[in-house]
Amino acid sequence: MSKSNKTSKAAVKPLMAKSAKAQSALRPIKGGKPAPAKPAPKPVAPTLKAASAKPAPAPADDSPIIALNLPAAKLNPAMAAYFKKCQDKLGFVPNVLVAYAFDNAKLEAFVAMYNDLMLGDSGLSKLEREMIAVAVSSQNRCYYCLTAHGAAVRQYSGNPLLGEHMVMNYRVARLNRRQRAMLDFAVKLTASPWSVEEADRERLRRAGFTDRDIWDISAVAGFFNMSNRVAAATDMRPNTVYNGQAR
Amino acid sequence: MSKSNKTSKAAVKPLMAKSAKAQSALRPIKGGKPAPAKPAPKPVAPTLKAASAKPAPAPADDSPIIALNLPAAKLNPAMAAYFKKCQDKLGFVPNVLVAYAFDNAKLEAFVAMYNDLMLGDSGLSKLEREMIAVAVSSQNRCYYCLTAHGAAVRQYSGNPLLGEHMVMNYRVARLNRRQRAMLDFAVKLTASPWSVEEADRERLRRAGFTDRDIWDISAVAGFFNMSNRVAAATDMRPNTVYNGQAR
Amino acid sequence: MSKSNKTSKAAVKPLMAKSAKAQSALRPIKGGKPAPAKPAPKPVAPTLKAASAKPAPAPADDSPIIALNLPAAKLNPAMAAYFKKCQDKLGFVPNVLVAYAFDNAKLEAFVAMYNDLMLGDSGLSKLEREMIAVAVSSQNRCYYCLTAHGAAVRQYSGNPLLGEHMVMNYRVARLNRRQRAMLDFAVKLTASPWSVEEADRERLRRAGFTDRDIWDISAVAGFFNMSNRVAAATDMRPNTVYNGQAR
Amino acid sequence: MSKSNKTSKAAVKPLMAKSAKAQSALRPIKGGKPAPAKPAPKPVAPTLKAASAKPAPAPADDSPIIALNLPAAKLNPAMAAYFKKCQDKLGFVPNVLVAYAFDNAKLEAFVAMYNDLMLGDSGLSKLEREMIAVAVSSQNRCYYCLTAHGAAVRQYSGNPLLGEHMVMNYRVARLNRRQRAMLDFAVKLTASPWSVEEADRERLRRAGFTDRDIWDISAVAGFFNMSNRVAAATDMRPNTVYNGQAR
Amino acid sequence: MSKSNKTSKAAVKPLMAKSAKAQSALRPIKGGKPAPAKPAPKPVAPTLKAASAKPAPAPADDSPIIALNLPAAKLNPAMAAYFKKCQDKLGFVPNVLVAYAFDNAKLEAFVAMYNDLMLGDSGLSKLEREMIAVAVSSQNRCYYCLTAHGAAVRQYSGNPLLGEHMVMNYRVARLNRRQRAMLDFAVKLTASPWSVEEADRERLRRAGFTDRDIWDISAVAGFFNMSNRVAAATDMRPNTVYNGQAR
Amino acid sequence: MSKSNKTSKAAVKPLMAKSAKAQSALRPIKGGKPAPAKPAPKPVAPTLKAASAKPAPAPADDSPIIALNLPAAKLNPAMAAYFKKCQDKLGFVPNVLVAYAFDNAKLEAFVAMYNDLMLGDSGLSKLEREMIAVAVSSQNRCYYCLTAHGAAVRQYSGNPLLGEHMVMNYRVARLNRRQRAMLDFAVKLTASPWSVEEADRERLRRAGFTDRDIWDISAVAGFFNMSNRVAAATDMRPNTVYNGQAR
Repeated sequence: MSKSNKTSKAAVKPLMAKSAKAQSALRPIKGGKPAPAKPAPKPVAPTLKAASAKPAPAPADDSPIIALNLPAAKLNPAMAAYFKKCQDKLGFVPNVLVAYAFDNAKLEAFVAMYNDLMLGDSGLSKLEREMIAVAVSSQNRCYYCLTAHGAAVRQYSGNPLLGEHMVMNYRVARLNRRQRAMLDFAVKLTASPWSVEEADRERLRRAGFTDRDIWDISAVAGFFNMSNRVAAATDMRPNTVYNGQAR
Repeated sequence: MSKSNKTSKAAVKPLMAKSAKAQSALRPIKGGKPAPAKPAPKPVAPTLKAASAKPAPAPADDSPIIALNLPAAKLNPAMAAYFKKCQDKLGFVPNVLVAYAFDNAKLEAFVAMYNDLMLGDSGLSKLEREMIAVAVSSQNRCYYCLTAHGAAVRQYSGNPLLGEHMVMNYRVARLNRRQRAMLDFAVKLTASPWSVEEADRERLRRAGFTDRDIWDISAVAGFFNMSNRVAAATDMRPNTVYNGQAR
Repeated sequence: MSKSNKTSKAAVKPLMAKSAKAQSALRPIKGGKPAPAKPAPKPVAPTLKAASAKPAPAPADDSPIIALNLPAAKLNPAMAAYFKKCQDKLGFVPNVLVAYAFDNAKLEAFVAMYNDLMLGDSGLSKLEREMIAVAVSSQNRCYYCLTAHGAAVRQYSGNPLLGEHMVMNYRVARLNRRQRAMLDFAVKLTASPWSVEEADRERLRRAGFTDRDIWDISAVAGFFNMSNRVAAATDMRPNTVYNGQAR
Repeated sequence: MSKSNKTSKAAVKPLMAKSAKAQSALRPIKGGKPAPAKPAPKPVAPTLKAASAKPAPAPADDSPIIALNLPAAKLNPAMAAYFKKCQDKLGFVPNVLVAYAFDNAKLEAFVAMYNDLMLGDSGLSKLEREMIAVAVSSQNRCYYCLTAHGAAVRQYSGNPLLGEHMVMNYRVARLNRRQRAMLDFAVKLTASPWSVEEADRERLRRAGFTDRDIWDISAVAGFFNMSNRVAAATDMRPNTVYNGQAR
Repeated sequence: MSKSNKTSKAAVKPLMAKSAKAQSALRPIKGGKPAPAKPAPKPVAPTLKAASAKPAPAPADDSPIIALNLPAAKLNPAMAAYFKKCQDKLGFVPNVLVAYAFDNAKLEAFVAMYNDLMLGDSGLSKLEREMIAVAVSSQNRCYYCLTAHGAAVRQYSGNPLLGEHMVMNYRVARLNRRQRAMLDFAVKLTASPWSVEEADRERLRRAGFTDRDIWDISAVAGFFNMSNRVAAATDMRPNTVYNGQAR
Repeated sequence: MSKSNKTSKAAVKPLMAKSAKAQSALRPIKGGKPAPAKPAPKPVAPTLKAASAKPAPAPADDSPIIALNLPAAKLNPAMAAYFKKCQDKLGFVPNVLVAYAFDNAKLEAFVAMYNDLMLGDSGLSKLEREMIAVAVSSQNRCYYCLTAHGAAVRQYSGNPLLGEHMVMNYRVARLNRRQRAMLDFAVKLTASPWSVEEADRERLRRAGFTDRDIWDISAVAGFFNMSNRVAAATDMRPNTVYNGQAR
C-alpha cells in the first residue's frame, strides 16, 4: 500500500476515533506520552497531505503549503515524536507545523506557545479560545486560520453554524454576555490596539472575567494576530481536510 | 535532563554569548559594568526595577507594571537563573518578563520564541530585526515596545535619530533599498495582512532577500503584532531606564 | 398578453429551465428530489423552512428570519406561484424572499432585479456572478449573503474550497487574470466607490471584458452592496440548509 | 387585468399623480411648463438632454452620460411611455434612465424598485427618503446621486440649505431627533454594515419609527448603496439641469 | 513707517486691488454693486449678515455663527477698516472673520496668512488655490469651507459645475494633468500626510510644477486642514448668501 | 505707535521675557548659556545649525532642511532681528523658520500665528498647548513636530516620559480628567473633524473648559494639522539638537 494511501486513510480515521471534545485545530495532544523514538519520516509536505491519493490534473489547494522555498530540516526527536502523534491521532500533520519544520527551534517555540495557550489551564474553555482565534482571524481575513480554527469551533461546539458565525461576522452569533464581551475585546484589540484602555478591561470584569482570564483573552488574541500575519506573509494553505470537518 | 531544561538553556544561551554590542531590547547593557552579583531577589516587580532606589512621592511610570492583578509565581530554576542574568548584565529585568512571570510555562514559551527570533541566526542583522520591531510597534502605537525597542535601535545603530525615525515614521529614515523594502513589507503586513501577496514577496526578493529572510521578516513582524497587543491589553509599562539609553 | 405579464414570467422561467447544476443562491436544488407536490402552505416563515422537522429546544438559527416584526402579506398569484416553485424545486423558499413577503410590490421588484442580474443573459457566467456576490459580501461581512451565495459558488463550481476562498479572502483563490481583475474591481467598488475611475475600467477591458460585461460586474456588485445592507439592517438569517450544501 | 399589469402601471402612476411639489430626483418638474408634446425621440442620450440647445465648443458635463459604450435598445412600449412622461413632465429624461436604456429588462427592474421605494407608501415622507439618499451618497461621494437627489431635497423641503447640508455633512443640519436618528442609522449602515445590530434598531424605535419604517430606511439606504456604485463604476453624469434647480 | 505697518496694510491691500473677477471666498463680490457706504456697524454677527433683512420665524442657518459664546472685541483700526471694506465690496463680512473677531491678534494673524496664501503671488492661479481649498474641505467634510470656497470656485471659473465637482468628488472633474496632479497631492496630504514622500513631489514636478509651486500647494492644503478643523470644532456656519452665488 | 507695530513686537516679546523653563518648541534654550553675541549670519540653513561644528562624512539628519529648492530671501529687519534673538537665546534658529525664510511675508504670517497661539494669553498652559501639538502630530505621524514639540513637552513638564507618552500614544499618560478630555477632543478633531459636534464641546465644558478654552484647543489642534502637512509635504527635518533636550 502506498504512503499516500495511508495518509489518506489516516486523514479520515482520527475524525472517527476522536471524541467530540478533544479537538483543537492543531488537535492537541496534551500531556500524553511521547511516541517511542522511531525514525521520523522526512517531513516533506506532499507525503503528509490527505488529498494526494490519485493523480490530479490540478495541484491541491495546499500544494505547496507556503509560497517560500524553505527546505525541511531533520526533525529533532521531540518534534519527530510530536509529528508522529499528530499523524496517529489526527491522520495528518497540520500544515502550519510543516511550514515551521524548516527549523527545529522555531517549530518548538511555536508548538510550546500554541499548546500552552490553546490547551493549557485557563478560565476560558477550549471552545472559547477557538472562538477568539476565529473572530480575530476574521478581522484579519486569514485563510489558514479561519479554515483550521473554524473547523475547531465546529467540532468543540458541535454547532456548525457557530463556526460560520465566527468566520463571517461574530456579531451575528447569539452569544451570552460573557462570550460577547470576550469577542468584542479581542476584536477591538485586533483592530485598534492603541485604543484599549482600563474601561475595556472593566467591561470584561463586569462580564465575569478574572484578571487572569483577561490575560488569556489577550494572549490568545495576540497569538492569532501573529499567526495570521505569518500565514498571510507566506500564503500558508490549510490542510484540505479541515474543510469537511464537523459540517 | 528533561526537555524543558534543554529548551530553557537554549533560551538563555544567546544572552551569554552576546557581545556588548549585540543587545536586544530584552538585554540592553550599555558599555556598562554588570551590577554586582548579589543574590537574585524574589521576582516581585518593584524589587526588580533599576530605577526604584529612592522613595518617590509619585509612583514610577511603570508601577504597576501591568493593569492586571496577577500574583507572581515562584520562578522555576531555569527562569530564576535567566532573571538573575538579566539583573547581572542589564541591571534590571525587563518588565515584559516580570509581566509574564505569573506563570512559568508562559514565561518560558515567550522567552524561547523571543530569543530565537531576535537573537538567533538570521540573514537579518539584529539591528534590522529591532527596526522591524519598532516600525510595527509604531503602526500599533505600542508604548511598551516603542520604548524598549526604540532604545535597542539606538544602541545597535549608534544613531539616536534612527530610533526616533522608527518610532515616529519610518518613512523619514534615509534607508537603503533593502531596509526600506523590509519595513514597507512589515508595516503593510501589520496594517492590512489580507492584502499581502506574491507581488509583495517578489519585491523583497528583488531587494536582495532570500526566502528564509522573508520568513524572518514576517515572523518578527508577526511577533510584535502579538506583543503589541498583549502590552496594550494589559497597559504594560516599560522600565523607566530605557528612556535615557543611548540618546 | 401584456408586457408586464411577460416580465413576471421571465422572472420565474429561469428557475424552471435550469439544470440541477445551474443553481443560484435563490434556487439551490442539489441533486435531490423535489418536495412532493403538496398544496403550497401559507407563506409563514417557519413552515417554509427545510430544517424544522423535529422540535428543537433552541430556536433555529434562522428563527425569526429577520429582527423586524412585519406580518406576512397575502402573496399575489405570481408570487405565490413563484414561492411554490421554490418549494418544489429547492425544497424551501429562500429566507430573503420570505423577508420581502410582507409586501408584494417590494417582493416582485426584488425578484425581478435579482433574476435579471443573476440568471439573465450576460457575458459573465453564473458562477462568476456568484463569485462577485460573495467577494462583495465578504467585504461587507454579510452573514446572509455569504452563507447563501457561498453555497452557490460551491455548487456552480463543484469546488467547495472556492466558496471558502470567496468567503474568507478572495485573494487566496488561484484565479485566472480575468476573474481576478473582475473581483478586484468589484471589491474596490465596494470599499471605495469614489475612487473608481477610467483606469479601473481599462484594467477590465485589458483583461478581456466588454463594456457590457463591465456594466454587469458593476450591477452585480452594486446589487449585493444593497442586499448586504438590507440583510445587516434587519439581521436577516439564511436558511440553515445552505450550510451543508456542496461541501 | 393581471396583478403584474398593475405593478407595471403602478411604477408609472406616481409620476402622473404627483403635484408640482411632490417630486423625486427622477421627476423634478419645477413649476415650469412641460415641454410641448412632440413625438418621443429615440432614447439617444444627447437628444434627451435639456441643456443641449445651442452648439457648445466643449462637451456638456453629461456627455457622454456614462463611460461605457452601450448602444441604446429599442424601448418597449411601457418604457417608451415612461420616458415620454418624463419628457413631458420634467422636460428631460433623467440620465440614469438613459443609462439603463440599453436593456429593457434592466431598465424596468430599476424603475419598478425605484418607484416603489421612493414614491410608494411609507411611513417616511418623500423628503425623508431623499434625505437618506443624499446622506448615503455623500458617504460614498457619488456625483450623480448627490446632484440629482440633492436637487430633490431642495425641492421637497423648499430649503436650499438643507440640500447642501445633506451633500456636505448631514451632521450640520439642525434636525429633529427622528430625522437625525434616521440618518445616523443610514450612514452607519453605509459605512460599516457589519456593525449594525439590535441596539441600532432600538434607537430607531425609541425615535418613533415602526418596524416597517426601519425596513424602509434600510431599503432606501441599501438602494443608494447600489446606485452609488453603478454610477461610480460607469462615471454616470447627472443631467446638467439639476444643478440650477431650487437653489 | 515700520515694517509691520506695511504688513498689516498688505493684508488688506489685495482686497482693494482685486478686479470683480479676482475674488476669493473671503471677498466674493459678484458683478454686483457694492453696498452703499454706510457707517460700518459694530461687528456683531447678526447685523453683518446680508440675508437677515426681514424677521424670520426660524433662525437663519448661520445664527449663531459659531457654537461658542465669545463676546466680540472692539476691532482695532486696521481690522475695523478691513471689515468695512468687506462690507462695502462684498455686501457682507465673511462669517469666519466675525468668528475670529473676539480677539484682534488672532483675527489679524488669520487674515494675514489667508491673504498671503490665497491672494498673494504664486505660480498657482487663484482658481487653482480655491480648487485645492474645496477638495481638501471635501475630504474633511467641512460645511463652512465647502460653502464659502465652493462659491469661489464657481465664481473664478465661471463654471458652476466645477464647484460641485470639487465639493462632491474632485475625481469627476475633467481636469488637465497639472490640475489633477495638484489635487491628488493635496488630498493625499490631507488624508494620510505621513505617506507623502519624494515620489509624490516628483509627480508634481513632472506635471510642470516648480518647487515653489509645491510649497504653495502644500501650504494651501495645510491651511484648509487647519481651517476645516477650527470650523468643525466651533460649528462655524457660512454666510447664507454664498449659497446662491454664481450658480 | 500703531496697533500693528504692537502686534509685531508682541510676537517677539514672549521670547525675551520667558524664563529658562518657559520654552516652546520654537525657543528651546535649555539651562545653557546663550551663544556668544556674534553678528547674525546670513540665514542660510547650514550656518544656523548648532550641531554642524565639525565636518562629518554623512550629511546631518536635517541637511537639507526641506526637500524643496527654495533660495533664502533677504530677511526683512523684523525677521532678521527675530532670527538673531533665536540664535542668541536658543543657540539655533528652529528649522521651520529657516524653511519659511524664502519669503518674508509667509515667514511673518507663520511667526505671528504661532506666537499668538503657543505663547499668547490663554486659559491653557503652555505645556497643555504643547501636549496638544504633540498628540495631534502623533496622529499625523509628523517627524518634525513630534521632535521639536516633544522636546518642548519634556522641558515644560520636567517629565521626560510625558513627552514620550504624547509622541507614542497619549492614552498611556496618567492625566487628570481635564487634560485627557482636552487631548481626546484634539485627536478626534484631527482624525475625523466631520464628526465633532455639540456633545464633544459639552464634554470639554464638563471637564472645566470655558468656551474661549475650547477655541484655543481647536486653534492649536488646527494649527498643527496645518504644520504637520507642510512638514510632511516638504520633508522638513527638525534641528538635530532637539533630540537630546530634556531627556
